[in-house]
Amino acid sequence: MRVAVVGATGAVGRTILQILDERAFPLDDLVAFASARSEGVRLGFRDDEVVVRALHDRWFEGVDLALTSAGGAVARQILPAAAAAGTVCVDNSSAFRMDRDVPVVIPEINPEALDGHKGIVANGNCTAITALMALGPLHKRFGLRLLVTSSYQSVSGSGMKGVRELAEQVDKLHEQIETLTRPDPQALPAGEVFGRTIAFNVVPHAERFDPEGSGFTTEELKMGNEVRKVLGIPDLVCSATAVRVPVVAGHAVSIYGRFESPVSPKEAREVLSRAAGLRVVDDPARDQYPTPLDAAGLDDVLVGRVRQPDGDDRALLLFAVGDNLRKGAALNAVQIAELLIER
Amino acid sequence: MRVAVVGATGAVGRTILQILDERAFPLDDLVAFASARSEGVRLGFRDDEVVVRALHDRWFEGVDLALTSAGGAVARQILPAAAAAGTVCVDNSSAFRMDRDVPVVIPEINPEALDGHKGIVANGNCTAITALMALGPLHKRFGLRLLVTSSYQSVSGSGMKGVRELAEQVDKLHEQIETLTRPDPQALPAGEVFGRTIAFNVVPHAERFDPEGSGFTTEELKMGNEVRKVLGIPDLVCSATAVRVPVVAGHAVSIYGRFESPVSPKEAREVLSRAAGLRVVDDPARDQYPTPLDAAGLDDVLVGRVRQPDGDDRALLLFAVGDNLRKGAALNAVQIAELLIER
Repeated sequence: MRVAVVGATGAVGRTILQILDERAFPLDDLVAFASARSEGVRLGFRDDEVVVRALHDRWFEGVDLALTSAGGAVARQILPAAAAAGTVCVDNSSAFRMDRDVPVVIPEINPEALDGHKGIVANGNCTAITALMALGPLHKRFGLRLLVTSSYQSVSGSGMKGVRELAEQVDKLHEQIETLTRPDPQALPAGEVFGRTIAFNVVPHAERFDPEGSGFTTEELKMGNEVRKVLGIPDLVCSATAVRVPVVAGHAVSIYGRFESPVSPKEAREVLSRAAGLRVVDDPARDQYPTPLDAAGLDDVLVGRVRQPDGDDRALLLFAVGDNLRKGAALNAVQIAELLIER
Repeated sequence: MRVAVVGATGAVGRTILQILDERAFPLDDLVAFASARSEGVRLGFRDDEVVVRALHDRWFEGVDLALTSAGGAVARQILPAAAAAGTVCVDNSSAFRMDRDVPVVIPEINPEALDGHKGIVANGNCTAITALMALGPLHKRFGLRLLVTSSYQSVSGSGMKGVRELAEQVDKLHEQIETLTRPDPQALPAGEVFGRTIAFNVVPHAERFDPEGSGFTTEELKMGNEVRKVLGIPDLVCSATAVRVPVVAGHAVSIYGRFESPVSPKEAREVLSRAAGLRVVDDPARDQYPTPLDAAGLDDVLVGRVRQPDGDDRALLLFAVGDNLRKGAALNAVQIAELLIER
């Protein structure tokens, strides 16, 4: 079993290497690819090192399984030929997620979707995976009919450059924090990665605005598209808001779901506590609820704040938090690979 | 006209003094009160100073109008006697908001509610005011029927001690920001004000958990209670999530509203652009949308990201941001006082 990691030097690629090691993934040989700029970089893997190679036309020769995290444009260029040649590709970009022939798979939620794959399997969007880990089991039991989400997405969702931009801006601003009750716009650092100052701010703009003019960002459209596809609810109306926050790792999502059947918070908590890959952290009396700093570095998605608004016995509110680099990306990709081997 | 500011040394009290000055509020004499601890503190007011006095039993003697921001417990102790003695009190706490005899007033939205007051007028909750500035005009035109909100609330909502706690935690953590992808729980500063580390985190817990066990926080329950009262929709189902974020000033709220009439984003933008106290900042093509750093220090509430989910022509999404110390507290209180004088 020869495994390739493509985009190995990025935040997700490095996490994939860590997780392959942690889970003792059954591989004989590992090859790491990145852009020409990173050629020759040495990455630690198991007790050894792997030397990064530049991507080239025949990169997939002899590769049984590729875990790719190189962005949508590169994925579109390099994956079809690899899949056609027999390399099974688990892709972390959004390039193929809406293709009819490409399943979006979360192993705990819809493992059966793997059956139809034709060489490319898509990993879901980081925020969508976090939400789906909680919504999946609830949908099976109660039938999801309406979804509203608002996210709190960390800067590492934009890779290490996002983390660096936050760090630089915090360095500039933290000694004048009290002036931020009345900030001088000229004195605020412009954001190259996030388009606005992200330190001491929240930015309701992730990825880019829908070129078709819906007013949604592409990040927001993914939530509805992927929930509909993974849960098989083609007519679900989903209202997503994606907001970047000055957090390093861990994406949180505030979820309102309305269900076909009446559901109590107690029943919901029971269903969630039996679900794989999910940990219920929900005890107001003991101030237990999930936050990104609790979830960063963990494999499980944390869910809490389970409650119901007065006057609607079919509505539920939840707050779910997952590590965007792990379950939101690298871990889910490795789990898909494990499932491929198992089958 | 003798005006008292109670709680004058707090973040909201100081902002009230600034705004009385900025708006040339018609007063003859200003007295400032705070707890005994702050007795003798000198606060700048207009080109002069005012010396803070300790609250005492007869503080309201000779006071025509009191702007009080001293917390709910103090408000319950001191306001009924003052109101009975003829001092009109505009209170920033939540103590009286749900009283039948006490109107919650946002001058741009429900000025008529002032008519019934019996000496105490309540200022709304900071996040609820921000949401209501956008929801009010939309409700009048389209009829609000369902509301889901998720907030991004700044630390100054907990006063200057909240700002100090964020600053201290940022000082401790900012040089090790990259370790926060896998934080060591022992190394994270405990939060006294927020219950958790607020730097580089978001905390889905504001104020305290509902003692009646609904699972909501009291901050979240205020959203529904105040929207129902201010807009006069007693049966509105409201699902609010309140989250504290590491922002100094400016509360943002992600709003999903469903209306009785069909509504397009274009119509909604037209209605919002004609509303007083509101500024529409909504142009995806030019990357225009509101953030807390844009709203901090402003009087207007900013609203943008107006859009509609596919498949529901009665639903709207909005992102509103207001300065929690100004329109969310001090400014709205001063505007209520101006309206009282006008009437």
